[in-house]
Amino acid sequence: MKNDGEDSREVVSVDPSSCSRSRMAPTSVDMGMARIPEEFLVQQAVEEDDCHRRRSPSSEVPAAVAEGVFVPPLNFAMVNDGVFRSGFPETTNFGFLETLKLRSIVYLCPEPYPEVNKEFLESNSIKLFQFGIEGRTEPFVHIPGERIREALKVVLDARNHPLLIHCKRGKHRTGCVVGCLRKHQKWCLSSVFDEYQRFAAAKARVCDLRFMELFDTSSIKPLST
Amino acid sequence: MKNDGEDSREVVSVDPSSCSRSRMAPTSVDMGMARIPEEFLVQQAVEEDDCHRRRSPSSEVPAAVAEGVFVPPLNFAMVNDGVFRSGFPETTNFGFLETLKLRSIVYLCPEPYPEVNKEFLESNSIKLFQFGIEGRTEPFVHIPGERIREALKVVLDARNHPLLIHCKRGKHRTGCVVGCLRKHQKWCLSSVFDEYQRFAAAKARVCDLRFMELFDTSSIKPLST
Repeated sequence: MKNDGEDSREVVSVDPSSCSRSRMAPTSVDMGMARIPEEFLVQQAVEEDDCHRRRSPSSEVPAAVAEGVFVPPLNFAMVNDGVFRSGFPETTNFGFLETLKLRSIVYLCPEPYPEVNKEFLESNSIKLFQFGIEGRTEPFVHIPGERIREALKVVLDARNHPLLIHCKRGKHRTGCVVGCLRKHQKWCLSSVFDEYQRFAAAKARVCDLRFMELFDTSSIKPLST
Repeated sequence: MKNDGEDSREVVSVDPSSCSRSRMAPTSVDMGMARIPEEFLVQQAVEEDDCHRRRSPSSEVPAAVAEGVFVPPLNFAMVNDGVFRSGFPETTNFGFLETLKLRSIVYLCPEPYPEVNKEFLESNSIKLFQFGIEGRTEPFVHIPGERIREALKVVLDARNHPLLIHCKRGKHRTGCVVGCLRKHQKWCLSSVFDEYQRFAAAKARVCDLRFMELFDTSSIKPLST
């Protein structure tokens, strides 16, 4: 399932501590379709040779796999060809995630990625794109449109597929990125909202709906059909 | 996206009036991986030459497409590579469904398919597999396990992909088929239930959960990895 058009295997992490909105630089690094401002990027080399299929330290993963049962992450779903969404993957989910043969993860929280998750990514040669978005509660929510736009560009780049988008619970931040993707796919707004609400359920936020409604997709490269 | 391994384009409809459980025949017709008892089948020839891209009589479809907006059916979602789920497609959804380049539809209600939907299938060379399951309410629900099993075999046959599973609202009957697919994929039961509930929401039924829990997938051909 992996696309062979992209050979680099480094972890590309968007350091949340270095991406306050006021410091967003106009310069950018070409990540294929996605052009990510340089200040967003922290390159971390991954030693590939000895890390393939290395197991995470957790004993839960082999146990779950040994029983022949897969445990998808919270709020897991397929979004599109090569694009998945979920809440935060735990060690019990690693066996399942391996079946997806992921090439990239788009992580939408500002908190550093846990060591055990980093090790999983390294051992499976998965690239990490981190776009730190604060997980505040209403009425103090601020959704940084430019960061959502950059995340969306990474999601739309088929060279990053198969790709998993996740935040903490897979409701708000992930819901906004997927909602913007749907707008880009020309879904009517009521269907975009319906999908958002299916995952956010009782936690659905009017400010997220408004953000998606007003999000302008015109500057994003059109989808090839 | 279409699989070229299957050239026949006839509508294969499982006539609900001819498939009471007591009359299930042991003979079957080979539909690839799926072997469907002959009594389930009504073959309807489709004149292909002159019907490609023929528009449905509804004026809503061209209007929706003209505005550049797609309207997915109620409760639409992607299940897996080449497999989608939804509620009953209406004429407003036809423009969107065309983008999926469907090869087959698995329809889970006993009611005859509406003429306008049949015309849409014919004009897009989509094969119809109908497995009539009554849409009763609790406590009178009866889920015919054998029919779900036959539907699942059609869903698992990649030669039928891309494929849409639908019933009326995309909650119970569709939820059960997708849940059984997830069991076949070795998802843990709590994740199977979680996905079912995301679509059924306030209408979730304990009898459906129990059906999925007890459904035996051992006789179904293992997934190739």
